[in-house]
Amino acid sequence: MEKRPIIIDTDPGIDDALAIAIALFSEELDVKLISTVAGNVSLEKVTNNALKLLAFWEKDIPVAAGADRPLIEPLVDASDIHGATGMEGYDFPEPKKELLLEEHAVNAMHRVIMESKEPVTLMPIAPLTNIALLFTMYPEVKDNIKEIVMMGGSASRGNKGVMSEFNIATDPEAAKIVFDSGLPIVMAGLDVGWKALVYPEDSEKLLKMGKTGEMAYCLFKKYRGGTFGTGLKMYDSCATAYLLCPELFTVEETFVDIELAGSMTRGCTVVDLKGYLKQMPNAKVCTDIDGEKFRKWFLEYVGRCI
Amino acid sequence: MEKRPIIIDTDPGIDDALAIAIALFSEELDVKLISTVAGNVSLEKVTNNALKLLAFWEKDIPVAAGADRPLIEPLVDASDIHGATGMEGYDFPEPKKELLLEEHAVNAMHRVIMESKEPVTLMPIAPLTNIALLFTMYPEVKDNIKEIVMMGGSASRGNKGVMSEFNIATDPEAAKIVFDSGLPIVMAGLDVGWKALVYPEDSEKLLKMGKTGEMAYCLFKKYRGGTFGTGLKMYDSCATAYLLCPELFTVEETFVDIELAGSMTRGCTVVDLKGYLKQMPNAKVCTDIDGEKFRKWFLEYVGRCI
Amino acid sequence: MEKRPIIIDTDPGIDDALAIAIALFSEELDVKLISTVAGNVSLEKVTNNALKLLAFWEKDIPVAAGADRPLIEPLVDASDIHGATGMEGYDFPEPKKELLLEEHAVNAMHRVIMESKEPVTLMPIAPLTNIALLFTMYPEVKDNIKEIVMMGGSASRGNKGVMSEFNIATDPEAAKIVFDSGLPIVMAGLDVGWKALVYPEDSEKLLKMGKTGEMAYCLFKKYRGGTFGTGLKMYDSCATAYLLCPELFTVEETFVDIELAGSMTRGCTVVDLKGYLKQMPNAKVCTDIDGEKFRKWFLEYVGRCI
Amino acid sequence: MEKRPIIIDTDPGIDDALAIAIALFSEELDVKLISTVAGNVSLEKVTNNALKLLAFWEKDIPVAAGADRPLIEPLVDASDIHGATGMEGYDFPEPKKELLLEEHAVNAMHRVIMESKEPVTLMPIAPLTNIALLFTMYPEVKDNIKEIVMMGGSASRGNKGVMSEFNIATDPEAAKIVFDSGLPIVMAGLDVGWKALVYPEDSEKLLKMGKTGEMAYCLFKKYRGGTFGTGLKMYDSCATAYLLCPELFTVEETFVDIELAGSMTRGCTVVDLKGYLKQMPNAKVCTDIDGEKFRKWFLEYVGRCI
Repeated sequence: MEKRPIIIDTDPGIDDALAIAIALFSEELDVKLISTVAGNVSLEKVTNNALKLLAFWEKDIPVAAGADRPLIEPLVDASDIHGATGMEGYDFPEPKKELLLEEHAVNAMHRVIMESKEPVTLMPIAPLTNIALLFTMYPEVKDNIKEIVMMGGSASRGNKGVMSEFNIATDPEAAKIVFDSGLPIVMAGLDVGWKALVYPEDSEKLLKMGKTGEMAYCLFKKYRGGTFGTGLKMYDSCATAYLLCPELFTVEETFVDIELAGSMTRGCTVVDLKGYLKQMPNAKVCTDIDGEKFRKWFLEYVGRCI
Repeated sequence: MEKRPIIIDTDPGIDDALAIAIALFSEELDVKLISTVAGNVSLEKVTNNALKLLAFWEKDIPVAAGADRPLIEPLVDASDIHGATGMEGYDFPEPKKELLLEEHAVNAMHRVIMESKEPVTLMPIAPLTNIALLFTMYPEVKDNIKEIVMMGGSASRGNKGVMSEFNIATDPEAAKIVFDSGLPIVMAGLDVGWKALVYPEDSEKLLKMGKTGEMAYCLFKKYRGGTFGTGLKMYDSCATAYLLCPELFTVEETFVDIELAGSMTRGCTVVDLKGYLKQMPNAKVCTDIDGEKFRKWFLEYVGRCI
Repeated sequence: MEKRPIIIDTDPGIDDALAIAIALFSEELDVKLISTVAGNVSLEKVTNNALKLLAFWEKDIPVAAGADRPLIEPLVDASDIHGATGMEGYDFPEPKKELLLEEHAVNAMHRVIMESKEPVTLMPIAPLTNIALLFTMYPEVKDNIKEIVMMGGSASRGNKGVMSEFNIATDPEAAKIVFDSGLPIVMAGLDVGWKALVYPEDSEKLLKMGKTGEMAYCLFKKYRGGTFGTGLKMYDSCATAYLLCPELFTVEETFVDIELAGSMTRGCTVVDLKGYLKQMPNAKVCTDIDGEKFRKWFLEYVGRCI
Repeated sequence: MEKRPIIIDTDPGIDDALAIAIALFSEELDVKLISTVAGNVSLEKVTNNALKLLAFWEKDIPVAAGADRPLIEPLVDASDIHGATGMEGYDFPEPKKELLLEEHAVNAMHRVIMESKEPVTLMPIAPLTNIALLFTMYPEVKDNIKEIVMMGGSASRGNKGVMSEFNIATDPEAAKIVFDSGLPIVMAGLDVGWKALVYPEDSEKLLKMGKTGEMAYCLFKKYRGGTFGTGLKMYDSCATAYLLCPELFTVEETFVDIELAGSMTRGCTVVDLKGYLKQMPNAKVCTDIDGEKFRKWFLEYVGRCI
């Protein structure tokens, strides 16, 4: 089987780490590039985390650093949730700095896409700043992109604002550019993230599964003490799950737009399931997930990691 | 037992009709005034409908006509759903025109409230234009209002726009004035309206319950053919239900604000259940309803009507 | 000559006082009602000021108090400019309280307009809250209104915000309702107010002109020390001037709308002189004034006051 | 004298052509790069125009093509004013295609700035899309930029919308990024562009001044027939004029922000001359120009061109 070429755009973070691990150790995906962007914590930190993770997994994937802030507004990161670096509390090896390209992530994405024989899939699990810059700088890449499978947005309520999800709310203008791009988009947002749960008994299994599982166990225990006993939400892994096992999801083709104005609703993903806005669909929105199957899938795929 | 004095602000419509019927025939409520406002259909039509209903029920409640359009934007009514008059298809008696006050509804509400010995409860089940005008013209009424129990809004998605409910979206500025009023507010919106279902077997019972039930059966059959077989949503009756049987509802005290800007989210009730906006609660929001108990309650109370 | 019936809607304030004085002592205008609204200072204070002024001028014009705050937002008054009461520093007689109607200003306006044989002219020189409430509560008054001649707005820059004038910015929603009313509107805003100057040599003449001129001299000296020597701006008198001497003004028929959204431009009067918005004209906007002739006119008419 | 290194970001257009000509033939400026951006007409056309102009002037300045559309909204060009190509009606030589770099304009700007020994001045006379992308992709360039001298914006009214100038209104988000950049900014907008007039007698002189003057005469005659007899507005040349002869201008240091929301004021440059917004100045705004001196300056500098 030919592996599917993908670029992961990410701001690790432990949640991102698992989504990346599954992709890197899957047989189906060929991760051509990991691009980083300011989000959960600063660009410097997320880039360093990516390099640490690759050292940890002994994988030589090129890494390129991208935007250090959203297009319009200053970065409001989530270091209150993710801690100072986003990945403390586990003893990672030194970051493998030689994997870091000198190129800007946007230029690296451009090059990788233009050089690829097969259309490339983008998997953004972070604010969409890099992707928006890519499409604005290099619209020609659209011809060689297969689809965009993102973690982000919500068809109901938010987790950064009342009506806005973190990745989208962090850079609403970038999200608008991406949803207006005309490319096939899969949006796996809070609607599925909130149900993609790993229960305590699963976590215990993780611990015995190899060092990736052990790392995940330790970091989740540290960062998500509150939900550790009731179900850890695997937001970013939903994007990887969609790529590897789309049948886990209920999907609706619909029109999605990003609210840029709004005194309290800026960054809301307006998911028009009922067609009030009378627009053509521009995205497949994951509206539901089979939580039980997801758990099994998740453990199986983490089990393939070292 | 002393009856609780209430004013019903309404735009009937069959959905309103049942909510009013239950209030009028209950032993607990003393309906002092029915005020009308443009909403489901035009002011003239909703006022006429109110007078027809009172003739039908042989009740001499004074009616006052209020605002014929929202504060800022033109009326976009729901005559696509409610038909030309909002209550065709049943043979009502002539409207009892002598019940119609010469006073503007806002002045009538003002008078009734100021004259009442007991604090008055407002039950708006329509756009909030009249109530907003009342508070703006006569802020002194606030001292003799017990609470506002409304049908309107949503803590999730909308039914007029993607994120906005009909009553609020029809006059968002009025809703903003009401939620900023400082008065105790109960918001029974789509979150409970969508679950306040009357099933086909219930409808059959309605038919045998007296002329109110029969009328309801006929009009629902006409106007809501699509959901007649799967469950009729009793939106407005949720407000009456809260007044008569609050234990049907799960309620959260929270801050609610109305999005006035927003290119696609105008009229959204921003229900801040998680406290992102760091404001003091200003409303009790009905977030859930016991559907089974509601059905029983509904049939019991419709059974008390003639 | 038949006198032209007018209602003055006002928030005095010394600037308002002169505009009112000229109207009261002119032969051409018949002031039927003075309605007050919160603006420069609180409703209580502006109403008291109106009653003081009428006692001072020995004029028995009915006064009705209206809205104590703008429709949507809290009042941000101009007491930093107008002082605690808006009219300190001159020894006025006691307010003539018997002139104050019990009716709300909006009801009084409604009654006066409906009773008038001749169509009534409205002269609002304050935030437009009362006028907006009037049109919303009683749309039937429009049939007996001749025109609205207001002080407010700007075709260029602002004096409350960068792009917004005080009367409009204080209640933008009310202004929107008025400009959408379909009635003939004359807007005399900052474009002429900034050029309707009374120079020091004029002020000296005021001092010798009778007690109204003396009062004006004293209050301007107190409140506008900074511009006393370089030219006092007679904003509100521009509205009276337009009514009595329209030839002082250059006027353009154009479309005017009120910006309600906008993070920094809320309350901007968007005066579309070039037709970018492709709307029909809804107002005559005073874009220029003959300053020299205005001075003469002003002194002549103040000279007619006691 | 050392020449001052500059990059001209432009969308020619005849108006741009003269601003560029003056810069290219001045002794004071060293044009390192001409970057193009969609604006007056499409990217392809403006780039072709730049190459034609350089062939015409026999100048070997590198050209790099940049963004083909604004960040968020589709391009609404000004081809209604500028004609199909923006420069028809004069017989230009073939575009000198070998001057066109393969690099994206943003990358070319980045390289030129980082390689320059002296801090580089940016002279954008077009929508600010390229400059915004430059700062977002490569924040490190800020350390080697001397200042930004732009044609754009207005402290009063607009020429694209009622309150918005073409270059800013075409890409308001880009303008916001530039004004938020923290770099020294000079804004020469409509306030001076409307007064930077070249009268018919000047135009006659242009005709005899060499081929640049002749070309200008012909193109202005074609494109601006309406104002040819009353005064041609030299918008873009104001930016060059500020660089070469700043004493022509009255300048105020003030805070400028871009309205992004606003139903009718989007793209307004909110120039806070009176300090209503209580922000630190971020720009020098040209509020006036000595029109007489500008005419002399303009003719003198066009006289230096071939």
